[in-house]
Amino acid sequence: MSRIAYVNGRFLRHSYATVHIEDRGYQFADGVYEVIVVYNGMMIDEVMHLDRLDCSLRELCIRQPVSRAALRSIIREIIRLNKIKCGLIYLQVTRGVAKREHPFPNKAQPSIVLTAKPITMPSQKTIEAGVKVITIEDIRWKRRDIKSLALLPNIIGRQKAKEQGAFEAWQVDENGKITEGTSSNAWIVTQSGALITRTANHDILNGTTRLSILKLAKRLGIKYTERSFSIEEAKAAREAFISSATTFVTPVTQIDDVLIGDGRAGILSLGLRGSYIEYANQQGGTI
Amino acid sequence: MSRIAYVNGRFLRHSYATVHIEDRGYQFADGVYEVIVVYNGMMIDEVMHLDRLDCSLRELCIRQPVSRAALRSIIREIIRLNKIKCGLIYLQVTRGVAKREHPFPNKAQPSIVLTAKPITMPSQKTIEAGVKVITIEDIRWKRRDIKSLALLPNIIGRQKAKEQGAFEAWQVDENGKITEGTSSNAWIVTQSGALITRTANHDILNGTTRLSILKLAKRLGIKYTERSFSIEEAKAAREAFISSATTFVTPVTQIDDVLIGDGRAGILSLGLRGSYIEYANQQGGTI
Repeated sequence: MSRIAYVNGRFLRHSYATVHIEDRGYQFADGVYEVIVVYNGMMIDEVMHLDRLDCSLRELCIRQPVSRAALRSIIREIIRLNKIKCGLIYLQVTRGVAKREHPFPNKAQPSIVLTAKPITMPSQKTIEAGVKVITIEDIRWKRRDIKSLALLPNIIGRQKAKEQGAFEAWQVDENGKITEGTSSNAWIVTQSGALITRTANHDILNGTTRLSILKLAKRLGIKYTERSFSIEEAKAAREAFISSATTFVTPVTQIDDVLIGDGRAGILSLGLRGSYIEYANQQGGTI
Repeated sequence: MSRIAYVNGRFLRHSYATVHIEDRGYQFADGVYEVIVVYNGMMIDEVMHLDRLDCSLRELCIRQPVSRAALRSIIREIIRLNKIKCGLIYLQVTRGVAKREHPFPNKAQPSIVLTAKPITMPSQKTIEAGVKVITIEDIRWKRRDIKSLALLPNIIGRQKAKEQGAFEAWQVDENGKITEGTSSNAWIVTQSGALITRTANHDILNGTTRLSILKLAKRLGIKYTERSFSIEEAKAAREAFISSATTFVTPVTQIDDVLIGDGRAGILSLGLRGSYIEYANQQGGTI
């Protein structure tokens, strides 16, 4: 079956899905995106993702290309056309096509593109082994709270991670504190059992999975603190993990050359992953 | 006459010029660009632009899509097809089309896009009146020396300038020093007559026009210093101007609410603009 994409009002075969070369997303990174996961036939946190999309658009003064109701229909149709049971929906909105000039064009119709693809969930064995992360300097711009297309520093960081046999790169600010991964939030569990993740402000993207984990932690009576933590504190942690829409909760068992805990996934990380999956499974009827 | 664009090996009518939605330039700002000006039928500083393009590509580990010789032929053909006498060539290279994943794809053919359009030079009267710039916080990433597509902070800044009736926005670093404009370099002439522009390192893009002006200043015996300067120093300057491939040397006569000098273009700025135009006119035979 060939994949189907959605581009500005039309469902197309993926290989034929194109945009104009003067789409401002292509020339200026002038747009935003969301990734929504479909798990066992159900979307996880759809409303939170669409709310954040609205927020990103508002911050950049980009008009909504279609109504919320229309967007929800398009999402459902692209899931159906691509027969996605477990997979992800990629959704991108740009300021649209206009002759190339830096200021925002007066009249441009925002562009909207959606794709869908199946994903395979990692085995429990893989999760228990955990992943390695490296630490790199955070060289990004100062509005990381906007989920924009200006991802060049993120992909450079991720490439570095790949070259060092790591799954993700944790970015470090000028004070030696970890901000987040290149496409995930960063978490640690201290030796005294405190769950820590950085406060959400302009320094990081406030992940939907991050927010859901905080809600789950509260419900489960797990104490957590939103604050910055250093590389040293992370390396001395009992547990560490990353969170994102596509990785859920994924244990980190090595930071640079240092094993975390005993080098196997920690119990709190595994517990939160289990709770998150249960939470995802309970979103029945969302689609 | 309809405009002609070049996209990955083909000359096409501009309105039909498209790229795939999974071009990494569209999803990750994973690419670089150059703007080359054609003035009285001649390209200005073509070799410097192509050298910088190579440099940007090398920094991002993107392969050259075509040889230098082929690229020069394409540029000449697009100038010819669009009948450009005074205009600009926009040239963009991205890492190419690949399924969406952060790390660099192993096998992707870089994408190359060129467009050309005529431009009208401002009148001498407009130049003598000068332009207004505003000052804004520099929120960009830390590798501004790479001429990348991740221009979102630049366009936000330029939009702010437009909303405040200004031509450009000068970005200010965490030490209160001006880095550069959103698409131009920043210069001042102090009350003692010293020509100042910021040192080219990772903090700014080293403009080809900036380099040519420094060469001209040297030839003309004008003393210059490459160093940082503050907003206050700029506002107290005798003259100020911006430089870029498309604006040449353009006098700045107002910074925020402060008039520079007597609020009219300064003599050194006008002199350097004149010398630059002469320099441009002497590039005969480049095309």
